Amino acid sequence: MFKKIFIANRGEIALRIIRACKELGIKTCIGYSVEDKNSIPVMLADEAICIGPAQSMQSYLNLFSLAQAIHNSGADAVHPGYGFLSENPTFVKICNDLDVTFIGPDEETIARLADKSKVKQILKQNNIPTIPGSDGAVKNLDELKSVANTIGYPILLKASWGGGGRGMRVVRSENELVNEFNAAQSEAKSSFGREDIYVEKFIEHPRHIEAQVIGDKFGNIVHVGERDCTLQRRHQKLLEESPSPYLDEQKRAEFLETAVRAASILKYWNAGTLEFLFDEEKNFYFIEINTRIQVEHPVSETVYDVDLIKEQIMVAYGYELSFKQEDLKPKCCAMECRINAEDPEKFIPSPGKIEFLFVPSGAHTRVDSHIYCGYNVSPYYDSMIAKLIISGKTREEVRTRMLNSLSEFKIEGIKTNINFFQKLLSSEDFINNTYDTNFIDRVFLNNHK
Amino acid sequence: MFKKIFIANRGEIALRIIRACKELGIKTCIGYSVEDKNSIPVMLADEAICIGPAQSMQSYLNLFSLAQAIHNSGADAVHPGYGFLSENPTFVKICNDLDVTFIGPDEETIARLADKSKVKQILKQNNIPTIPGSDGAVKNLDELKSVANTIGYPILLKASWGGGGRGMRVVRSENELVNEFNAAQSEAKSSFGREDIYVEKFIEHPRHIEAQVIGDKFGNIVHVGERDCTLQRRHQKLLEESPSPYLDEQKRAEFLETAVRAASILKYWNAGTLEFLFDEEKNFYFIEINTRIQVEHPVSETVYDVDLIKEQIMVAYGYELSFKQEDLKPKCCAMECRINAEDPEKFIPSPGKIEFLFVPSGAHTRVDSHIYCGYNVSPYYDSMIAKLIISGKTREEVRTRMLNSLSEFKIEGIKTNINFFQKLLSSEDFINNTYDTNFIDRVFLNNHK
Repeated sequence: MFKKIFIANRGEIALRIIRACKELGIKTCIGYSVEDKNSIPVMLADEAICIGPAQSMQSYLNLFSLAQAIHNSGADAVHPGYGFLSENPTFVKICNDLDVTFIGPDEETIARLADKSKVKQILKQNNIPTIPGSDGAVKNLDELKSVANTIGYPILLKASWGGGGRGMRVVRSENELVNEFNAAQSEAKSSFGREDIYVEKFIEHPRHIEAQVIGDKFGNIVHVGERDCTLQRRHQKLLEESPSPYLDEQKRAEFLETAVRAASILKYWNAGTLEFLFDEEKNFYFIEINTRIQVEHPVSETVYDVDLIKEQIMVAYGYELSFKQEDLKPKCCAMECRINAEDPEKFIPSPGKIEFLFVPSGAHTRVDSHIYCGYNVSPYYDSMIAKLIISGKTREEVRTRMLNSLSEFKIEGIKTNINFFQKLLSSEDFINNTYDTNFIDRVFLNNHK
Repeated sequence: MFKKIFIANRGEIALRIIRACKELGIKTCIGYSVEDKNSIPVMLADEAICIGPAQSMQSYLNLFSLAQAIHNSGADAVHPGYGFLSENPTFVKICNDLDVTFIGPDEETIARLADKSKVKQILKQNNIPTIPGSDGAVKNLDELKSVANTIGYPILLKASWGGGGRGMRVVRSENELVNEFNAAQSEAKSSFGREDIYVEKFIEHPRHIEAQVIGDKFGNIVHVGERDCTLQRRHQKLLEESPSPYLDEQKRAEFLETAVRAASILKYWNAGTLEFLFDEEKNFYFIEINTRIQVEHPVSETVYDVDLIKEQIMVAYGYELSFKQEDLKPKCCAMECRINAEDPEKFIPSPGKIEFLFVPSGAHTRVDSHIYCGYNVSPYYDSMIAKLIISGKTREEVRTRMLNSLSEFKIEGIKTNINFFQKLLSSEDFINNTYDTNFIDRVFLNNHK
């Protein structure tokens, strides 16, 4: 087994990796920024090396500094967590050059799957449902019209070189097409420097559901169920649950079978997530594959009683998967709320010192968090300070327990979204499972549209 | 269902009861001493009524004050937790007089089972193994000799009106009998005012194993497995686990069947615990029945995936048990460490203010605790500040995880026994399961004998 793992991350996921390593008897070395010197992961790791100042670009994203720290640590493997450099092929190459195992898929796989349009094309050719649309940018209005007629309205115009929702326009009929196309082109040009536009069918009221997969180097790959991540605020996930209340058993089986097939087609291994959108008729379409562990992985761990971080480490070392598909049976329902240090009205970060803290615990409650009373929530990093994961026999039991746990969670000194979650979990639409990915933006951000 | 439950307790068990009530949709009112006014249970209960000053005799044991508070709260039931008034028949009678349901067995049952020697006699008559000995006090030396010859040496002389280990003498042969009898009589007289001595077979190197039972008013009674509570310090339990590593499947089945039979003979209902000693040949002997929920109940909850506090409330209201014996299957191994605020060398309380706190969490970890950073651990009450309960597939997995969790548990400002548990769990005898109830006193208190 690995002797020492270098943790190229911070916060709760760094602590999560330390816990997995301790269970496996592997030593840990964490690279930390000056800002994080008093953090729990730094206290609990066997060793810690400072990798630079607070700013991520100079520490957690600083390839040079990390390479040096990894080399000096004497670690034989690196766990990147999520975010930061977890999907960066250059970082994987650096690890390889240092003769250190990157815990995740290999460099070639990460690089190959980073080309989202190429991945979509491969899967489409292999009969994995993807969102219908043009193959790359449309050449002109005539081609756009032709594609639009084929896939049917409403359609979504997207800037080929864009991102973050800019340059995106929904077109509901051919009447609007000329004006919207011109507007999208000029917005794309002004925002991203290139006017290329591609077109996709617009999915109305979509649900976002993803499949957790994990595979080894020997071609074994299994799914660890699905997670419903429909509840997002501006494309940022806030609450995830498994099983998805949107799927019946037959649809779930079809979905998960498709996801595993897609992962196999892509020759994927290690832990990964395949994200899909579901339309109102419960047709589903592949969006993208994430080649890393995800924030919401404890939801699947809880439902299936597995340890995905330990499994990641073991398959990266070269072991076969420790379970087969038929060993994995859902044991309960689980839900995760991402507790963020943020203004609950404006959804903007609220960094600062935690002056009072009581974290819920007890049965059916898992909290993955690095905070403590006296901890300074940094303005430099993501505002997530805790993941509250609740399990139970039914969705309603989990919902009630989550509300109870949220009411126990006391954090003073900074603002959090705990009260937002209490409202969300008490809403009729949440209870009745009648929501889509725009629900939070529509209902809870009404004043800020 | 009950509308409001009055909680006649404090600390972690008060919080535990609040959690169960929230899940059942029952309001809570807690009676608290002035000392506990800033406690988490007082913050989290729906209502709180002060019942007196810090000293237990004037608050948590003050029947008059409690009666008044219970009446004023408008509660229709009282949960006594453990300790304090949980096994006090007068308190049960007061509740009845107030027309409020005491959550536990009825007054008659509690009073009847408080007479330990009577209970032993009834069970003995019904072929439940009890420790062989005299029926009550021996009249004279001749009777003592005769009983001793019947049961065989070594024997244990005990003061009939004693307690806390005083007046107890081990006699290993008839040669020592006269001297030890005389010494025991005079010690009994000086300590307890009466020289009556009774005799029991002395169990060498015993294991303390108990059975959790729960029953309803309709005569249904089931066991929820056993807990091995052998690891004690001066008769105070410190670590409990289930299943007991001392029992094979056959012996476990025999033991649990016997325990349920004993509970039935005693017409027991609600949650209770039957305590037994096991000798080195794995013969077991009933010691006593505890007519309340116990500190270590989360061990059984974790292994069997049940909620004993909710079940207590439901059967007290008059519901049938929500499960049958055949529904209860052990799902994992679990272990509990009782984290005490105490000097780890001298085992004396270490009250004071908690200046820094990080509580372990994450998967497989349950912490039942009311402490927070800034909390003042009171010198007036029991020194237990947290119960750390860990689960896993095997005992060894649990042991490793417990060690990891203990190493994460950071408490500054007061002394705790965390380091003691690290030594205990790392000891060869613990790993090899070769210990008895005197193990901690013998090995860890060596300097203080």
